[in-house]
Amino acid sequence: MQTASPGLKSGRILLRAKDQPGIHNAILGVIQKAGYNVTDASGKSIDGQYLIRSEFSATKEELSLQEFEHRFSEALAPLGLKDMYIRVIDAGRRKRAAIMVSEITYCFKELLHHLEEGDLSFDIACVISNSRKAEELAKSRGIKFHYIDAGKKSRDGEVAFEQRKLDAEKEIDKLTAGNVDFYILAKWHRILLPSGPLLSNRIPIMSVHPSLLPSFIGGHAIKDAYENGVKIAGATAHLVTKEDKNIDEGPKLIQIVQHAGNLPWHEFEKNVQFAEREAIYRAAKLMGEDRYIIYSDPSSGTRKTFIL
Amino acid sequence: MQTASPGLKSGRILLRAKDQPGIHNAILGVIQKAGYNVTDASGKSIDGQYLIRSEFSATKEELSLQEFEHRFSEALAPLGLKDMYIRVIDAGRRKRAAIMVSEITYCFKELLHHLEEGDLSFDIACVISNSRKAEELAKSRGIKFHYIDAGKKSRDGEVAFEQRKLDAEKEIDKLTAGNVDFYILAKWHRILLPSGPLLSNRIPIMSVHPSLLPSFIGGHAIKDAYENGVKIAGATAHLVTKEDKNIDEGPKLIQIVQHAGNLPWHEFEKNVQFAEREAIYRAAKLMGEDRYIIYSDPSSGTRKTFIL
Amino acid sequence: MQTASPGLKSGRILLRAKDQPGIHNAILGVIQKAGYNVTDASGKSIDGQYLIRSEFSATKEELSLQEFEHRFSEALAPLGLKDMYIRVIDAGRRKRAAIMVSEITYCFKELLHHLEEGDLSFDIACVISNSRKAEELAKSRGIKFHYIDAGKKSRDGEVAFEQRKLDAEKEIDKLTAGNVDFYILAKWHRILLPSGPLLSNRIPIMSVHPSLLPSFIGGHAIKDAYENGVKIAGATAHLVTKEDKNIDEGPKLIQIVQHAGNLPWHEFEKNVQFAEREAIYRAAKLMGEDRYIIYSDPSSGTRKTFIL
Amino acid sequence: MQTASPGLKSGRILLRAKDQPGIHNAILGVIQKAGYNVTDASGKSIDGQYLIRSEFSATKEELSLQEFEHRFSEALAPLGLKDMYIRVIDAGRRKRAAIMVSEITYCFKELLHHLEEGDLSFDIACVISNSRKAEELAKSRGIKFHYIDAGKKSRDGEVAFEQRKLDAEKEIDKLTAGNVDFYILAKWHRILLPSGPLLSNRIPIMSVHPSLLPSFIGGHAIKDAYENGVKIAGATAHLVTKEDKNIDEGPKLIQIVQHAGNLPWHEFEKNVQFAEREAIYRAAKLMGEDRYIIYSDPSSGTRKTFIL
Repeated sequence: MQTASPGLKSGRILLRAKDQPGIHNAILGVIQKAGYNVTDASGKSIDGQYLIRSEFSATKEELSLQEFEHRFSEALAPLGLKDMYIRVIDAGRRKRAAIMVSEITYCFKELLHHLEEGDLSFDIACVISNSRKAEELAKSRGIKFHYIDAGKKSRDGEVAFEQRKLDAEKEIDKLTAGNVDFYILAKWHRILLPSGPLLSNRIPIMSVHPSLLPSFIGGHAIKDAYENGVKIAGATAHLVTKEDKNIDEGPKLIQIVQHAGNLPWHEFEKNVQFAEREAIYRAAKLMGEDRYIIYSDPSSGTRKTFIL
Repeated sequence: MQTASPGLKSGRILLRAKDQPGIHNAILGVIQKAGYNVTDASGKSIDGQYLIRSEFSATKEELSLQEFEHRFSEALAPLGLKDMYIRVIDAGRRKRAAIMVSEITYCFKELLHHLEEGDLSFDIACVISNSRKAEELAKSRGIKFHYIDAGKKSRDGEVAFEQRKLDAEKEIDKLTAGNVDFYILAKWHRILLPSGPLLSNRIPIMSVHPSLLPSFIGGHAIKDAYENGVKIAGATAHLVTKEDKNIDEGPKLIQIVQHAGNLPWHEFEKNVQFAEREAIYRAAKLMGEDRYIIYSDPSSGTRKTFIL
Repeated sequence: MQTASPGLKSGRILLRAKDQPGIHNAILGVIQKAGYNVTDASGKSIDGQYLIRSEFSATKEELSLQEFEHRFSEALAPLGLKDMYIRVIDAGRRKRAAIMVSEITYCFKELLHHLEEGDLSFDIACVISNSRKAEELAKSRGIKFHYIDAGKKSRDGEVAFEQRKLDAEKEIDKLTAGNVDFYILAKWHRILLPSGPLLSNRIPIMSVHPSLLPSFIGGHAIKDAYENGVKIAGATAHLVTKEDKNIDEGPKLIQIVQHAGNLPWHEFEKNVQFAEREAIYRAAKLMGEDRYIIYSDPSSGTRKTFIL
Repeated sequence: MQTASPGLKSGRILLRAKDQPGIHNAILGVIQKAGYNVTDASGKSIDGQYLIRSEFSATKEELSLQEFEHRFSEALAPLGLKDMYIRVIDAGRRKRAAIMVSEITYCFKELLHHLEEGDLSFDIACVISNSRKAEELAKSRGIKFHYIDAGKKSRDGEVAFEQRKLDAEKEIDKLTAGNVDFYILAKWHRILLPSGPLLSNRIPIMSVHPSLLPSFIGGHAIKDAYENGVKIAGATAHLVTKEDKNIDEGPKLIQIVQHAGNLPWHEFEKNVQFAEREAIYRAAKLMGEDRYIIYSDPSSGTRKTFIL
């Protein structure tokens, strides 16, 4: 999404590398030498990784994003870092998100609420849905809407259904690629295809699941939690990535809890929905501000996030 | 444990039955006719069950516990209740618990703290442990202590080890049967034998597990949760019953949460231990006051608790 | 609001009296003798009070609400109870609420959300507001709307302003009296007049305040909390009654907390608003189901609630 | 407490200054030029302040703490910072705390628990108390104990009582000055004298209060909260400083909440004590790791903390 920018007024760097001496100094050296001021800094060591999120502002001359990338690479090269992740971001550019939503709209409506209250740190580029209700909600607020029908197994048959899902993803990709910074699955009814265009194009995707994962994966999480007799319920906002073995196993961003003891089914369900609405808003906000870094747990290999 | 009592000054009834009209009235009728006053009442309908916990006090004449049981049975008989559970309790008698603890003593110490502060609603009949540290803690407070060695696989070999576990349970049973109202497994190092004496004798057993079950069953729950990247951690106090398919799958009594995001391993672990200490105390208190009723979820068959 | 009902299919009783033997039995005796079944029962002793909330269903013949009231009075008379509060309610009748809202609509929108999701246990009789935004929100959902202008000090002058406030209350009273079971002040911009018609007519009124009361009363609660440096923030839903010495000092119904440490002002404010939205919904639900009883703390005289 | 150190293996800097460009760069420039590596960095802008907590490790040559202080001063001088706070700390030296405790020992016992579990990031230099129970607890663990009698109004008379308090503070000061990094008031029974030696010598002092401050200051906080009818209770760990207008109004470090609705007095009290125990441990940990910076809210002037 980022086109050549003539010069950054304010920039942001995200970095993850195997922890070793000198990483932070190398990054800071570049920023200082470029005549920028550090305005916000986080550098943390965890699980053998070193993670940086830092913001910097131009004083006089401005460097382009590409030039920053180049200089960071050069400065880090002598350290011979392995498995490094680095990203330089124009902090002055407001991000754009595509929201994908199906028939169940309470998470989408929570995002719309925050849009109206001016709480969102990003813009909604468009809404993609197979639901006329979502269409009405989007259009009444002047948000671009795309109707997508991803088929139904019963109507299409197994093979045609798979094809329809792929077609739908291709269409979504076409509508959004190059135009959005991330996707929010606000109760999207389809599991993304592991080799489909959406997971392959590496644009971040966030989803919300109505349980405290890893408990209760799958399509009946609230009911399953209720039937299990949990005393604490909740929701998880997580990333959806090509690396996930299963849906609901992507790196977690936020978990919100709610009391669940003694509640009858309907109130239990409502409590989880409260948690979902809070989780999706908070996770969306994190994404709009680039406040997470993914890394692998050194023992289990599970992909975790650190929030900065 | 309950021997023939000449007359109840104050009684307590716990009841669970398939919900149908007339249950509460039948129970209340007996209490009223006996000349007792209801002093605390809970009657709740959930998941197709009707649950009662009620306390009552004598005004003049006193009825024995057995007489109450008899009268309740008679009054309920016309309703033809299925799968009914009913228990009448002498509310004036302080309960007695046996605490089983191994090398890790922080949960035991939490209980001792509340003992010293006068917070416990029951007495500690004895402490059973394979740990000299627990012995010292118990004896310095004048609590009866029994040393039990349940063996080690490496030392005993597989077959001898199973026998040692059985011998240990038999010994514990002998030391406690007829003398305790419930067991608290305050970090006990052995899985109870499914057909062993402790699970067979039907005296309630409570244990605490360092995760928000059903996530992370097994012996490395805190580590597993950490490696999974959860943002919310916690502990679960649950019952251990003959019906449980696996350890950690007994009816849940209490779940306590703690924040877990961004924490390094050691602080994550400490937060879970905070949750365990709170969970074991709260669950012990519930048991001392007969504040739970077990019932089966009608859809999943999972055994859940309702706290009254 | 309750007109003579020919017979209750299901009833509800709320009672509060100085605790003494025999209260619960007297109530239960009436229900049983009338041939009704107790279907939900709570009887609790706290702070020297005995509190009852109980539901009961007809089996064959039905008694009118008035007849129940009469019989309860008769049965309790021999106990000579002081300061007794008793209310019999037709449990089959859905309650009706008037919502009063000013320019800030996020609490009102939260209620509308739950209306649309079918979560409300009551109907919205009408919306009363001085805001065109609230008008649009109400009318687009087919909810009766009344525009009320309660004046402005700057425009009306002090004396005229007081008169305008009184006129507004009179108008609201006229629009709603006999037609609503309770009022919800969903961010209403006027302090109710201590001797005005709304507080005098004794119909319950609920309001939400953006702090963990009694901290930060008054009109700038969120800002005050922020400037104070609290690490935990929240919101309180409370009743507004003629007895309150100050606004924000009525009996508390619900308090919801949110994390507040290290947050910049805007995020702090958003967290409190999350708490307000949750508090107003939960408190509204309690009111729709008659789940609170007010009583005075025996030491301080402060009026508290017990939730049943 | 910090004597001339020949060279820092690892250092820590805390800084607070009115936010303006160049602060972070100046600090980082010094660290880099000294040949140290930044290993942990936090630089945050809030309420018009810029706050830094950063750790750094020597690569080859080591600079003394004094030399670092000197270089930081020089580097910051051109910025003309006002109201600046800066501290350089030897991160390799384990801190030492004096614990002051009176008759109520549950907070002290919580700290002892964590001492035994190896959770504390500091050493307990000594325990100061007027309680023989505290003495026994300390001595049985081999902790240095000083008995201090700060008098009683009833015994000493008003004037003599004030003198006794002053004498006690002088004695404590003598016992600890130059030997401790901070004080923990683990339920200390005396209000520190505003002009007494302990508040004057500027060694940090932490205390825990059994309410969610600013609600319920004073000596009967738990009772006051109970009588007020709060639905959420909790505890606050805060600093005690010369600048506080009243006790309980020092900068807050940590607030811990507990559910409080419907609880009878004794359980309410126990819940608050749970919160106190968690708060004192967490706050002690923050102090041992220098994880807080005090600053004044720009609007109210109230002194707040930011946790880094």
